Amino acid sequence: MADEMTALIADGTDRDTAKALAKLRVARVPRPEPKPGQVLVKIAAAPCNPADFYYLEGRYGIDRPLPATPGFEGAGEVVASGGGMLGRWLVGKRVACGGHECTGTWAEYVVTASDQCLPLRKELSFDQGATAVANPMTALSLVGLAEKGGHRAYINTGAAGQLGKMIRAIGDERGLVGIHVVRRKEHVTALGADHVLDSSAPEFAAQLATKCRELGATIAFDAVAGAMTGALANALCEGGEVVIYGALEGKPSGSIDPMELCFRHKQVRGFELAGHLKALGMLRSMRLGTAAQKLVARGLAATQVRDRVPLAEAPARLAEYASAMSDGKMLLVP
Amino acid sequence: MADEMTALIADGTDRDTAKALAKLRVARVPRPEPKPGQVLVKIAAAPCNPADFYYLEGRYGIDRPLPATPGFEGAGEVVASGGGMLGRWLVGKRVACGGHECTGTWAEYVVTASDQCLPLRKELSFDQGATAVANPMTALSLVGLAEKGGHRAYINTGAAGQLGKMIRAIGDERGLVGIHVVRRKEHVTALGADHVLDSSAPEFAAQLATKCRELGATIAFDAVAGAMTGALANALCEGGEVVIYGALEGKPSGSIDPMELCFRHKQVRGFELAGHLKALGMLRSMRLGTAAQKLVARGLAATQVRDRVPLAEAPARLAEYASAMSDGKMLLVP
Repeated sequence: MADEMTALIADGTDRDTAKALAKLRVARVPRPEPKPGQVLVKIAAAPCNPADFYYLEGRYGIDRPLPATPGFEGAGEVVASGGGMLGRWLVGKRVACGGHECTGTWAEYVVTASDQCLPLRKELSFDQGATAVANPMTALSLVGLAEKGGHRAYINTGAAGQLGKMIRAIGDERGLVGIHVVRRKEHVTALGADHVLDSSAPEFAAQLATKCRELGATIAFDAVAGAMTGALANALCEGGEVVIYGALEGKPSGSIDPMELCFRHKQVRGFELAGHLKALGMLRSMRLGTAAQKLVARGLAATQVRDRVPLAEAPARLAEYASAMSDGKMLLVP
Repeated sequence: MADEMTALIADGTDRDTAKALAKLRVARVPRPEPKPGQVLVKIAAAPCNPADFYYLEGRYGIDRPLPATPGFEGAGEVVASGGGMLGRWLVGKRVACGGHECTGTWAEYVVTASDQCLPLRKELSFDQGATAVANPMTALSLVGLAEKGGHRAYINTGAAGQLGKMIRAIGDERGLVGIHVVRRKEHVTALGADHVLDSSAPEFAAQLATKCRELGATIAFDAVAGAMTGALANALCEGGEVVIYGALEGKPSGSIDPMELCFRHKQVRGFELAGHLKALGMLRSMRLGTAAQKLVARGLAATQVRDRVPLAEAPARLAEYASAMSDGKMLLVP
């Protein structure tokens, strides 16, 4: 424990994003040591995801008490193993890593469970690897839900964001019809898809219902929550389901017409990657991870990187990033 | 079509209950004639249910264009058949009848599908028979959902109402633990159950969450909608589901924490008897109907009748009834 490292530390949460980011500081802290079944990864790049902001705002559904180092995802090289066959095999390898139980990737080093590390394919850079897990695996899983459920058409909210773009790319490739919802007028034409709606338009709810009827949409991926959940639930065709996987609006889900749920057999539920992977089991999860990397390598689930920011500058730069996340990802590079 | 009858006619809908009831009038109209597969029932008693008010307010999810005769349930004697074996067999029998496709039970006569008629057990009066279908069958179905899903404890909203009381009686008999939610302070002690909460209390959400943890509640029957849906979804234990079957509050469902759905695998869906019966199929539906009547005969699902009102007085009396439905049922008696 004599070795030190640089890390970001969040001292507390605040529902107000700016105030939450003000509680973030750069510190010199002891380097964590891997226990059996864990490895130590030297982080090369770690992304700033919506989930990180939820966490800093105290509205992410996991238990990692503060003060703590944020960051649930990253890429780097395994530099030490705490023991175990998998861990020893991983030493020296380039990996994508993360999970809710890691020590936090917004640091020079992270300790994580060995089975939460995916060896990186050769063709992927650390920058690509840093975002090759959470987003592409989520996108693959969501589109998988649509396929398994026999849904021909889906609604994709947050369509201008990185994850929304991946969902669209995967959906297109698999022959599903997507209705893509953006939250700003300027994104409508920028997106260049067949069916794009702007949720800030006053006639949005009516337009969405018309599109759903026209295309037979029966599943919606909700990255926004708030009144969006209701708009989706009310617009979907009979038997439709809203799958919430994010809460960009920062508000409780609402505006859901209860009669639509009762008489048209609709439902609202949630999706969260870690829980989904747990349910899948290790083998199928790893297969999903491999599929995700292949997608990234093929450019289908490529994350646009807007900025590479050293840890020391992160607290100042995150505020500006939080206000316009759909313009590309910000990576922290220790 | 020469024969006439007295019936209530709703000329239009209005979200405001009082204004909706003002559009209700007593009229002399042609007596409907049964077609093949249908029977003509001389109504002895028909209840006023929350669903009738939803219909008059234009927020019930079925298609029966106005002007029309309201009423989806009633009891009486089959006086004519439009043809078909079942119909001919039913002539002269005392039945409980209804459904969304009937001509409206708030009248002297109703035409309904023969297979929507359940012969009344001898021990049931017409008054009992009039409410022996929708409420007891819904209560049986909802408690059945709890049992089939392996839920040990449930939340019962609208617990002071007729349907809420039936759910509690059936749940008690089957050894399930109920958390009963009422909307007025005076109902808490009147109910006399082990776990009763008043949703108008400021500390309701916290109390509900504590009760859910204590008793392991994983399913909630939501008769209220509005903010109640969120209170239920947020309070239920991991894996919980909210089943909406009413909208007493008259507001969209909201206040649902999306993170609770994502991380604790909860969901919100709807229940509606007619759709449920359609999914069950005719045989199982009739078995459920028989079980419902047995419950009524045993006094377990007895409906308290507060008032027996002639059709001519109904428009005036319904307004007063709408404001305090949990004090007993109002029956219309032609």
